[in-house]
Amino acid sequence: MTKFDEATQAIRVDATTYDVCLDPGYAIGGPLNGGYLMAAVLRAVVDASPYEHPVSTAAQFLRAPRPGPARVRLEQLKAGRTAAMTRATLVQDDVSYIETLVTTATLGDGPSEWIGEPAVAMPAVEECLPLPSPKDESNMTFNAQIETRFDPPTIGWFTGMPTGRPESRAYFRMAEPQDPDPYVLAMAVDALPPVVFSAGARGWAPTVELTWHLRGLPVPGWLKVVGHGRLIRDGWFDEDVEIWDSAGNLVAQSRQLARLGRG
Amino acid sequence: MTKFDEATQAIRVDATTYDVCLDPGYAIGGPLNGGYLMAAVLRAVVDASPYEHPVSTAAQFLRAPRPGPARVRLEQLKAGRTAAMTRATLVQDDVSYIETLVTTATLGDGPSEWIGEPAVAMPAVEECLPLPSPKDESNMTFNAQIETRFDPPTIGWFTGMPTGRPESRAYFRMAEPQDPDPYVLAMAVDALPPVVFSAGARGWAPTVELTWHLRGLPVPGWLKVVGHGRLIRDGWFDEDVEIWDSAGNLVAQSRQLARLGRG
Repeated sequence: MTKFDEATQAIRVDATTYDVCLDPGYAIGGPLNGGYLMAAVLRAVVDASPYEHPVSTAAQFLRAPRPGPARVRLEQLKAGRTAAMTRATLVQDDVSYIETLVTTATLGDGPSEWIGEPAVAMPAVEECLPLPSPKDESNMTFNAQIETRFDPPTIGWFTGMPTGRPESRAYFRMAEPQDPDPYVLAMAVDALPPVVFSAGARGWAPTVELTWHLRGLPVPGWLKVVGHGRLIRDGWFDEDVEIWDSAGNLVAQSRQLARLGRG
Repeated sequence: MTKFDEATQAIRVDATTYDVCLDPGYAIGGPLNGGYLMAAVLRAVVDASPYEHPVSTAAQFLRAPRPGPARVRLEQLKAGRTAAMTRATLVQDDVSYIETLVTTATLGDGPSEWIGEPAVAMPAVEECLPLPSPKDESNMTFNAQIETRFDPPTIGWFTGMPTGRPESRAYFRMAEPQDPDPYVLAMAVDALPPVVFSAGARGWAPTVELTWHLRGLPVPGWLKVVGHGRLIRDGWFDEDVEIWDSAGNLVAQSRQLARLGRG
């Protein structure tokens, strides 16, 4: 079991309750990474489902939970012939922190019947750049869990040269060797810095809602995480992320609605 | 009050319960249009919220409700300084039909700080085509509620000439004169035929999950509804819809995950 598997482990208490222990090693500027929290919730949902994969997850981020013990409460909404639907809530001290609606199903590995534009071209991994170390690493423990290599222009904001467009593109894998799976993808859709940093914004940009769809099971190797925003207006922005596996398959799509940081 | 306003009316019973009456005039091949049902649910959510607009709605479609009386049950999850979060469930005879997680806030009408590609170019309204009448109109009552004018190639599937790509583009307005508002948008994101019809697919394509974001308040006039799909694989497809108002503002974004029809 890898560190990530252990940090997202959900232990069955009864049919509707799972225990999880939120790991302090996934902090981003204080709060725990939202994708990491989704991964832990999904472990519980899939364990309790007749199906194997979380094909659709819609999450509302109500509050930032603390590291330590927490519970996932499940409510089974429907179990159909091809999919099951579950409401899952991450709870700490009887307070809800994340609300989700999840659809599980069992994906096959057949070829795509139709696919649009291929992944945006990126330089080779060796020509891409790791995320520079932050000034204060103590509350950025998340960075040690993952390896990223950024398409250089999309990390220009770090040295005062944002591209002027909301975008972020990076190769991604876990720091501890681990093949990508649906839980790694749940974290990866929310793992890059907010796309608005490339448009000149700064500060904590809280995710309000994030929906992601699992579209295929990734093969081993680096993932390509390609993010962009469509519209920044009235303090709100969207962030669309596509994840491609090393065989060139689109394996995840996500969109989140978030608030621009203040300061 | 327009017919649509009446058909989506939600009457407060108490703080967590609203009565709605599902109108048989919104049927598509039997079941009621999912966007129409979302609009009715959102009336209840917004009425009970301190904020004015449904900025984010994630909906899971569990079952197809019948026309007639139904209830919206609300659970208030959080009321913050800029947004409130609610779980809302459409219920008939104590069975859940649609589960939603909704974020409400009050949008301003300031200009966009950043916007990506403009709307796809479309011919003028006069050069676009209405949806041809179906063979059996009796279970397609929805068509009488709306006016659509399709970008001609994207309705070619109706006469055996699909474009070969999952896409759909049309001008949209209510048949009864009514300025677009967030409830009209909730219906419009799910109002066009499935994008996969243009890729050659046929048959009822049930929506499993749909998330949409309200990004601005539309000005009066025709809406442009622009839909496309990214990936068709393993019986699942995604459908992305953008809605632009007549002033050229992006006012709504949606993505749904749906099943390919059988037959």
